[in-house]
Amino acid sequence: MPRIIKHPELRREELLNHAQALFLTHGYDRASLNDVIAAAGVSKGAFYHYFASKEALLEALAERFARQALAGVQDVLGDPALDPLGRLNALLAKSRQARVETAAEAWALFETMFRPENLVLFHRINLAASAAFSPLLVEIIRQGVADGTFHTFDPEGVADIVMQFGMATHDVVAKAIVGGSDADMDTAIEALEKRVRLYEIALDRILGLPDGSIRIGEPGYVRAVMTARRAGPTAAVPSKIRKRS
Amino acid sequence: MPRIIKHPELRREELLNHAQALFLTHGYDRASLNDVIAAAGVSKGAFYHYFASKEALLEALAERFARQALAGVQDVLGDPALDPLGRLNALLAKSRQARVETAAEAWALFETMFRPENLVLFHRINLAASAAFSPLLVEIIRQGVADGTFHTFDPEGVADIVMQFGMATHDVVAKAIVGGSDADMDTAIEALEKRVRLYEIALDRILGLPDGSIRIGEPGYVRAVMTARRAGPTAAVPSKIRKRS
Repeated sequence: MPRIIKHPELRREELLNHAQALFLTHGYDRASLNDVIAAAGVSKGAFYHYFASKEALLEALAERFARQALAGVQDVLGDPALDPLGRLNALLAKSRQARVETAAEAWALFETMFRPENLVLFHRINLAASAAFSPLLVEIIRQGVADGTFHTFDPEGVADIVMQFGMATHDVVAKAIVGGSDADMDTAIEALEKRVRLYEIALDRILGLPDGSIRIGEPGYVRAVMTARRAGPTAAVPSKIRKRS
Repeated sequence: MPRIIKHPELRREELLNHAQALFLTHGYDRASLNDVIAAAGVSKGAFYHYFASKEALLEALAERFARQALAGVQDVLGDPALDPLGRLNALLAKSRQARVETAAEAWALFETMFRPENLVLFHRINLAASAAFSPLLVEIIRQGVADGTFHTFDPEGVADIVMQFGMATHDVVAKAIVGGSDADMDTAIEALEKRVRLYEIALDRILGLPDGSIRIGEPGYVRAVMTARRAGPTAAVPSKIRKRS
């Protein structure tokens, strides 16, 4: 078979597709880098040209997930009928919708980052996802400051606080997973719902808005995302894939 | 020499003293658990009864540092002449003062946790330090809510946000250390000072107070803490200690 030269971006996307499929079928922890390399049918050298490690693959998948989640949101942000608060709420609604729609997949791919020893990975994945979300947030906050809707001297700093809010839910989620019972899950959902309410009001106030202006959650949102988690796949990767080279 | 039976708490404190002395003299990364065990003159079994790992030692030192920093603050908190805002500012001032006074020691002991691969350790150490600080914060916020000074439905949640503010400075500090130049340090100090101003106003507003009510920093505070860091000790632990058993 003649060697096909592919565009680097395309090749990278294909590697991500293979990785995502394997991680979804067998679980991130059970699939090895060699499995991904075998499934993609590339040389190790070619693979490492794109990704330094299995963690780097997961990081890139998180970044792609976040980018896809925000596809189309630019239209909303450019909508002249919306004021900055309307745009901020549209961005948050879009992000919420994508989270619910992809929750089962996201759990299958990213649950590993909630294991206590994977905190560094969690941090990396969050930063990768923030890279897609944060610039939009900063832009909307700047618009709101410019037209007098929002009141802050530091739009980038406020965007960072919003990102921190997301990261800070790590320990609650991790505890629910480790516990594993329905009661642990209910406790976590309740704690997260309360925390979302606090973050909504905190963000309202940080931006100088009346309480109840910004909507981070909605009824049933936390439960929908949390209960989309199913006991993960435990099947090992078939040797057919493992042995292919 | 007859075996001396010591009270467990006393023995634990002594082990911490030996660890702290070794870490301060030789640096956390260069001193090994065996060095601490040798310096303390205990058996490995006795040591592991108290601390599971070198990281657990550092965690316990962080907790002790935080506890010592807040010694005496209970007097201020019980002072009937102070209102809840006065108490909150007294707590923050006390914490600030302790940080400046112990900054050089704290850098020598805890700088390692700002290395990117040590994020889990950073998280653990922060939680240990929070365990001393957070209950006081919750108590003061509750008092303020009760007497109508503060306006929040979730004192524990607000205390958690304050703790997150502290953790969120990790990346700025880590970057300054990795960079290492005076310019990197100046950039970090400027970024941190701006962030402290944002956190002050954010906390004012989250508690329903006018901007400028709460003082997290003060002029020169960030610089004093950051510049207390000196190039660490590089001498290896002398073999006299290493070989002792």
